Order: sequence, then structure tokens, then C-alpha cells
Amino acid sequence: MRVIGIDPGLRNLGWGVIDTDGARISHVANGVVHGAGEVLADRLLALFDGLTEVIARFSPDTAAVEQTFVNRDGAGTLKLGQARGVAMLVPARAGLTIGEYAPNQVKKTVVGVGHADKRQIDHMVRLQLPGVEIAGPDAADALAIALTHAHFARASGRLEEALRRASA
Amino acid sequence: MRVIGIDPGLRNLGWGVIDTDGARISHVANGVVHGAGEVLADRLLALFDGLTEVIARFSPDTAAVEQTFVNRDGAGTLKLGQARGVAMLVPARAGLTIGEYAPNQVKKTVVGVGHADKRQIDHMVRLQLPGVEIAGPDAADALAIALTHAHFARASGRLEEALRRASA
Repeated sequence: MRVIGIDPGLRNLGWGVIDTDGARISHVANGVVHGAGEVLADRLLALFDGLTEVIARFSPDTAAVEQTFVNRDGAGTLKLGQARGVAMLVPARAGLTIGEYAPNQVKKTVVGVGHADKRQIDHMVRLQLPGVEIAGPDAADALAIALTHAHFARASGRLEEALRRASA
Repeated sequence: MRVIGIDPGLRNLGWGVIDTDGARISHVANGVVHGAGEVLADRLLALFDGLTEVIARFSPDTAAVEQTFVNRDGAGTLKLGQARGVAMLVPARAGLTIGEYAPNQVKKTVVGVGHADKRQIDHMVRLQLPGVEIAGPDAADALAIALTHAHFARASGRLEEALRRASA
């Protein structure tokens, strides 16, 4: 199964692609799409075009997008929401299933604790994907999201398998 | 000049198309795109496909999108942000210039006061576009946004014209 993880952002949208085969996980590619442009519409278009290209190039089977942290900064939430709308739209257009994970769920899965910082995430991503070169913190987050999705997909796959056997 | 006004929303995205020729304004069409589906990604895709179809069908020259009201409800702001990202993306993909207007700017332009309610907006839209049939409150808002964009485009056109004559 090929998984793309996406960390939405209006300026920097991180993405990371991994392959999973049972318990084996390998790195495929990662990068950052820049929301270049002076005005909002240009930025959204740059994110859309960039992410569309990434998905066409690597043909993932499923996608995972980080749930956006809603805080008291309404203007910031709105900006991130607009980027996240595009980040959800592009894999949906490609017909992919999309998992959503909260930041602390990603941290808990990848690092083991819900309050891990960026450096710990980066470290654990490198441990799980030996030799990986990471394009930046947003790409590291995206790989962590992809790893989380692979973990939950595997766990739910095992559950389904167990249920099948139990009812057989 | 053909203007499309867009009132973003995750469940109901209103749109309204008008033609302007100097001071003459006429109605072309209006409607609502429904963000149908159980999950967010499906809703965003429905909005994207629906609005893409509307723009392909009516070929507007320029677009105007309502600025989203940021309030203390972070989750609501995020939802609306995601819909608004798609509402901005679609006209940007079609190469249209996009104006953004705050709700009270639209009300002030169309009704004359910034605190007008839905019924007043509906009334003034009908006055300015005689005989119009309106698909619903979101479509009425979208027509009001289109009227506002036409007003400001005309005003800035007159200003540019005056500046050209002054410098000639």
C-alpha cells in the first residue's frame, strides 16, 4: 500500500509518500509545496497544482491529512482552513480514501507521547525510514502523518482479519 | 463585463452571475451548489465540481467572493475556511481576477447600511435585478456580492478614466 501524508499550510504544504508491505515500511519521497504568490487565490492555486502533480507522479493508494488545530486566532484558523480545503480536495479528486489524524494522535503514534516536539518527530521519522533525506519540518510532519495512517490501516486490517476468522 | 459572485459555505455555496454594461446591470443566472456527502472530502469535491461547471457554463470575466466572518467558534471558522479555499480556487483556476468583500461592505453597497438583514438584501437585489428568480438566501447573497463587485469595478474604472484625462 502506498500512503501519502499531507501537512496542510498556506505557505508550506508538506507531503511525504511511503510504501507499506505488512510490517515493512519504506520511504518513497517527500517534499514541500510552496503557496507562492501575493494574493490568496494564487497561493491556493499553487498548492492545488503542486499537490496534484505530486499525486499524479507517485500514485498513492490512500491519503492522510493532519487535522487542523483550532485556536483562538480566528484569522489564522481561517487561513489554515483554506489551505486544508485544498489539501483535502486534491486527493479526493484523485479518488483516494482520506484519513484524518489530530496532531497529538500523530505524535502519540510516531513518538509514543502526545506532546512530542518537532525534533522528536524528526528523529523518530528518521529511525523508521532509515537513510531518508527530509525536505524540511513540514515534510517531516507529513511523513509522520503517513506513518500514522499506515499504522492505523494495518491495525484495522488485522482487526478485520481477526473478525473474518472468528466468524468463519 | 460578466461578474460571478460567490457566497462560500460547506453545505450551501451560493452563486450569482450578472452582466454590467456601464450603469446597466442585468441578471444572468443564480443558484446554489450543495456540498453533498457524508465526509468533508466528498463535500469539498462536490463544491469544486459544481462551481467549476457553473464557471464553464457562464464564462464570467471576473469573480467576487465574500470574506468570511471570523468568530469565536474556531470549528465553524475552520469549516467555512475549507469551503472558502475551494470557492477561491475554482475561479483562480479559470484565470479570473477575484475581488474579496467583507459582509458589511456588501450590505453597505447594496442596501446602504452595514447592518442590513437577509430580507433587506433580498429586497434590494430584486429591485436592482427586476424579475429575478432567486434560488435561495445563499444565492441572494451571491448576487449581492456580484453587484458590489460591479459597483467597485465601475467606480475604479471611472477613477482610472478621470486620472487618464487629468494626465492627458
